[in-house]
Amino acid sequence: VTGFVSIIGAGPGDPDLLTLKAARLLRDADLVLYDALVSPEMRRLAPRARWFFVGKRAGRPGIGQEAIHRLLVRAARRGQRVVRLKGGDPFVFGRGGEEAVALAAAGVPFEVVPGVSAAIAAPALAGIPVTHRGLSSAFVVVSGHAEDAYRPILESLEPHTVTVVVLMGIASRATLASLLLARGWASPTPAAILRAASSPEATAWIGTLDGLGAATLPEALADSPGTIVVGKVVSLATTIVAARTIPESRLAAGRGR
Amino acid sequence: VTGFVSIIGAGPGDPDLLTLKAARLLRDADLVLYDALVSPEMRRLAPRARWFFVGKRAGRPGIGQEAIHRLLVRAARRGQRVVRLKGGDPFVFGRGGEEAVALAAAGVPFEVVPGVSAAIAAPALAGIPVTHRGLSSAFVVVSGHAEDAYRPILESLEPHTVTVVVLMGIASRATLASLLLARGWASPTPAAILRAASSPEATAWIGTLDGLGAATLPEALADSPGTIVVGKVVSLATTIVAARTIPESRLAAGRGR
Repeated sequence: VTGFVSIIGAGPGDPDLLTLKAARLLRDADLVLYDALVSPEMRRLAPRARWFFVGKRAGRPGIGQEAIHRLLVRAARRGQRVVRLKGGDPFVFGRGGEEAVALAAAGVPFEVVPGVSAAIAAPALAGIPVTHRGLSSAFVVVSGHAEDAYRPILESLEPHTVTVVVLMGIASRATLASLLLARGWASPTPAAILRAASSPEATAWIGTLDGLGAATLPEALADSPGTIVVGKVVSLATTIVAARTIPESRLAAGRGR
Repeated sequence: VTGFVSIIGAGPGDPDLLTLKAARLLRDADLVLYDALVSPEMRRLAPRARWFFVGKRAGRPGIGQEAIHRLLVRAARRGQRVVRLKGGDPFVFGRGGEEAVALAAAGVPFEVVPGVSAAIAAPALAGIPVTHRGLSSAFVVVSGHAEDAYRPILESLEPHTVTVVVLMGIASRATLASLLLARGWASPTPAAILRAASSPEATAWIGTLDGLGAATLPEALADSPGTIVVGKVVSLATTIVAARTIPESRLAAGRGR
């Protein structure tokens, strides 16, 4: 008996934003290896499965990428249907590619099930389209995790040509803002900080680039993951959100200026 | 009675990649306004609804954006549950932002339901992660539709710093390739042309940047929409796909060099 690994994107948090395919695979799974960004509510979708946490939490190191590869390979070789569940899309800063390569090398059959990426969904749920006729015809996605990775990209970009989306960017917001301002982006460029995008705890700070670095967030959120968006499209948030996407109260509560 | 509009991303084509929320809203919909990129199989998910095509087909102009806004507003005011169904994600080159703004202006309640974007899923399903440790820590997404929109962005980007994803890029592949080569991207940079990503007709051409412009595609596909990917991550396709994501035979059939 050979098992099978499904590397699945769990989407931005709300279990309702899982794909039909992801929900079906969870229902039939024997084992689910999941990360910190996966919502606990998703457990009820995989009642048969053993759930095993392999992420990092609050600064404590996780079990390590190599150990995850070994767990995946071993469970599949025991004949299990394994779901590797990752927040957002598994191939966007999710190290899903490394796991796919490891499974391929081990001869373990697997598939990749794309998910709704927070890079696009977090802005959308706050009323911000990453592209919009007349405002932006491109977007770039970087991770705020490592400055040496995002710095050369943001420095090479001509100011105001794209929407900039920074995943896991909250802790780096001051560095990001001064980098873009030094590169020539205008101080009043609209900017947003989005947290817990698709959950009931969603908050949005909407302001401008020169206020981004000093944006005051509730202390508990200051180091949490979250999405930063910079560009003219952010100016649409107020119009679009007024109707439905995030209850007004929550937007107002998070508003910084 | 006030109706409601749900602007929904249909994902890259396979109905299995709809979100749970999208499927539920389709099931209850009275009217579905859909685009050319929406798979006909999705109809069975909305058995109660009237389906109305508002896209463009084979060069023939569609009914126009203003007319779509009027249809949405009018149906909602008649009390209908309206689904506006768009390929991929509605806020990625989908003009979903314009529709949201129009609905907000008309006072019609609406929501945005993010979908799986082809910008990430088309590469993923061909075994290409848009980010990968050591190969790429960022990606930029442009549309191949209008050269004046993508040219300034691609010219501003330092070569080899990001993965470049071009949606609707097949017809522009020669222009795109010479632009990147002129900007200093190396000729052997891996490149891919991906079509019908999540359907049984999926094909992938895998080659290098200097071959991209002259890539021979089956004639029927030459002007079809599709996704182009340029960057080192494309080199992972062969390894990752060998296991599962696209049946080998289809990859081989589309292979150009």
